[in-house]
Amino acid sequence: MIPEDARSVRFRLGPPSVVDLLDQTKLPGELTRLLCTDGEMLHDAITRLVVRGAPAIGVAAAYGVLLTKVDPDMSAETVRRRYRETIALLATSRPTAVNLFWALDRMTDVIESADGLNVTALRDRLHAEAVAIDTEDVDMCHRIGRWGSEVLKPHRNILTHCNAGSLATSLRGTALSPLYQLHESGHRLHVFADETRPLMQGARLTAWELHQAGIPVTVCTDSMAGSLMRAGQIDAVIVGADRIASNGDAANKIGTYPLAVLARHHGLPFYVAAPTSTLDLGIPDGDAIPIEMRDASEVTHPVGHHLAMVPEGVAVTNPAFDVTPAELITALITELGVIHEPDRESIARQNPGRSAGTGPNVSAASG
Amino acid sequence: MIPEDARSVRFRLGPPSVVDLLDQTKLPGELTRLLCTDGEMLHDAITRLVVRGAPAIGVAAAYGVLLTKVDPDMSAETVRRRYRETIALLATSRPTAVNLFWALDRMTDVIESADGLNVTALRDRLHAEAVAIDTEDVDMCHRIGRWGSEVLKPHRNILTHCNAGSLATSLRGTALSPLYQLHESGHRLHVFADETRPLMQGARLTAWELHQAGIPVTVCTDSMAGSLMRAGQIDAVIVGADRIASNGDAANKIGTYPLAVLARHHGLPFYVAAPTSTLDLGIPDGDAIPIEMRDASEVTHPVGHHLAMVPEGVAVTNPAFDVTPAELITALITELGVIHEPDRESIARQNPGRSAGTGPNVSAASG
Repeated sequence: MIPEDARSVRFRLGPPSVVDLLDQTKLPGELTRLLCTDGEMLHDAITRLVVRGAPAIGVAAAYGVLLTKVDPDMSAETVRRRYRETIALLATSRPTAVNLFWALDRMTDVIESADGLNVTALRDRLHAEAVAIDTEDVDMCHRIGRWGSEVLKPHRNILTHCNAGSLATSLRGTALSPLYQLHESGHRLHVFADETRPLMQGARLTAWELHQAGIPVTVCTDSMAGSLMRAGQIDAVIVGADRIASNGDAANKIGTYPLAVLARHHGLPFYVAAPTSTLDLGIPDGDAIPIEMRDASEVTHPVGHHLAMVPEGVAVTNPAFDVTPAELITALITELGVIHEPDRESIARQNPGRSAGTGPNVSAASG
Repeated sequence: MIPEDARSVRFRLGPPSVVDLLDQTKLPGELTRLLCTDGEMLHDAITRLVVRGAPAIGVAAAYGVLLTKVDPDMSAETVRRRYRETIALLATSRPTAVNLFWALDRMTDVIESADGLNVTALRDRLHAEAVAIDTEDVDMCHRIGRWGSEVLKPHRNILTHCNAGSLATSLRGTALSPLYQLHESGHRLHVFADETRPLMQGARLTAWELHQAGIPVTVCTDSMAGSLMRAGQIDAVIVGADRIASNGDAANKIGTYPLAVLARHHGLPFYVAAPTSTLDLGIPDGDAIPIEMRDASEVTHPVGHHLAMVPEGVAVTNPAFDVTPAELITALITELGVIHEPDRESIARQNPGRSAGTGPNVSAASG
């Protein structure tokens, strides 16, 4: 496991309040933290991927609401307006990860039901909600780990893409949580980590946290997974997700979809591990998931390379996510259990309290 | 077309003889040339990928034989021994591209049939053979361009991987030659160039030469091809090859095989364009093709990045090539014509003068 001082998101209630982030843009070279003291700083940190991974973004944003500057002399209306402004700002930081909106909606609900509370009481209520989101995330990761370890138990050589581990959540991760669980129970594992261009989260983050935990890991470029599968060196694929439509189509880091196609071609299982907060039951399928397009410089100048890899004047495309259709997903692993061959019916069955329209109230959100 | 002064390989007969290479490791930032004056320099240049691409390596190696230091006072036996030493040295530069061995075998044949020739006459004979290999390569590229343009004519949006263009050959390339041909005839094209990790030949080289020629090109990471296909943005895939087995299995830059699987999944044609000098009829199938494993630093420090993308102590794999089985190849385009659904019989039929055993005499060679 990664050490406590490497937790992706920590919070100190002030004044001044601080959202204390492990700066993931600096890994694996430097283990440094960024202290965000206002909403703008946190918005910038989420946009720059200082903190990334759908669940971790949700936790950071929830705590981020408490960076709002309020004091006991303000009217109740002013205080609520200020909180709403912070929420509106944070909601614009990333478009694809639905957990961002889900967490901010929970914080909004606290504010809208705060009639009669004084400034301090409202702040304490918001703090309690953010801590709950954080604590539930830790619990969610453990549960996914338990369900997922049952699914992965027959396998030894596991391929993963991007980072859906401790660094992407409060602790232990989604796709990586079952691997920690298996490793701790003495199961022999070997993980292939796709480097995950353009931002190298697989090489920089997944390899780092698995190596810290003592799990054998080999980094490969995204282009190598196909021949590794063909050579019989991979038994199963497991990835996270940033948003899952009501029919099971799953948006995740660009490069996930080709792995699902390759896994199918080679007869290998392809697993998606994500909390139910990632489910967007308000949208019919993956086509409705907005895909964040990021700056061309992430492709042209890999991870801040001083030289351009692409000639001046040449076009570049840089979608941050792709969508894997549900029919290519062997099983969806949530904190509530395992859905084999996920579809609209099985997902609705696992989430009876939620239906189309009661999903996260999103206008548009991650890794 | 790229300008004459950007030809990948040029030669000046001395003394001192010089193999004059466009330094492809410096593109697209710098257009500089490396002048090789002995076999060791050229061996190092081929190993470092200053010159790369199976046909270009063959041409460079053929000229490289003429870097051997011989003079009229030496015995015929000494002269031949020296030439053989240079050939043996150059043969160790890259293991996968068969054109290297094919070109060196042609030069060996000249030496072995040189009885009675004096030093100058032998040198002139070798020079003539190297010029022939170079000239034939230009002609081969033009022929592939004509055949390939017929095949690609119905399509507009073409995906390619790595670089199989002018920079990989004497001129115009293999996979890119049909694109030049179509562009010159007024056909509207748009090319997606996979960046091609780890060494970025797609972003650095293919984008550069197509952009020079005025062909619209968009660079994407290798992980994006799948979602581009799913979105209907790609009509066909064309790539080169470094070695093709007698049954049609084709070794090419790592990341080619997943494109073939993705093309099949999306019902798109997948074309391989390569000269018949790339055919190794002495081996039964792709499993017999040796795959060069390159240094981990190409993955950990992308194109000389000053920071490590992979944590210290983590394993890295770096195969330079993968093998695409013949059944995923819609058509093989050589200078002799187009073989639809290539297999052992159709390849043998197109190459009647060659059979198993008469292929390049290789012990183990590219891009």
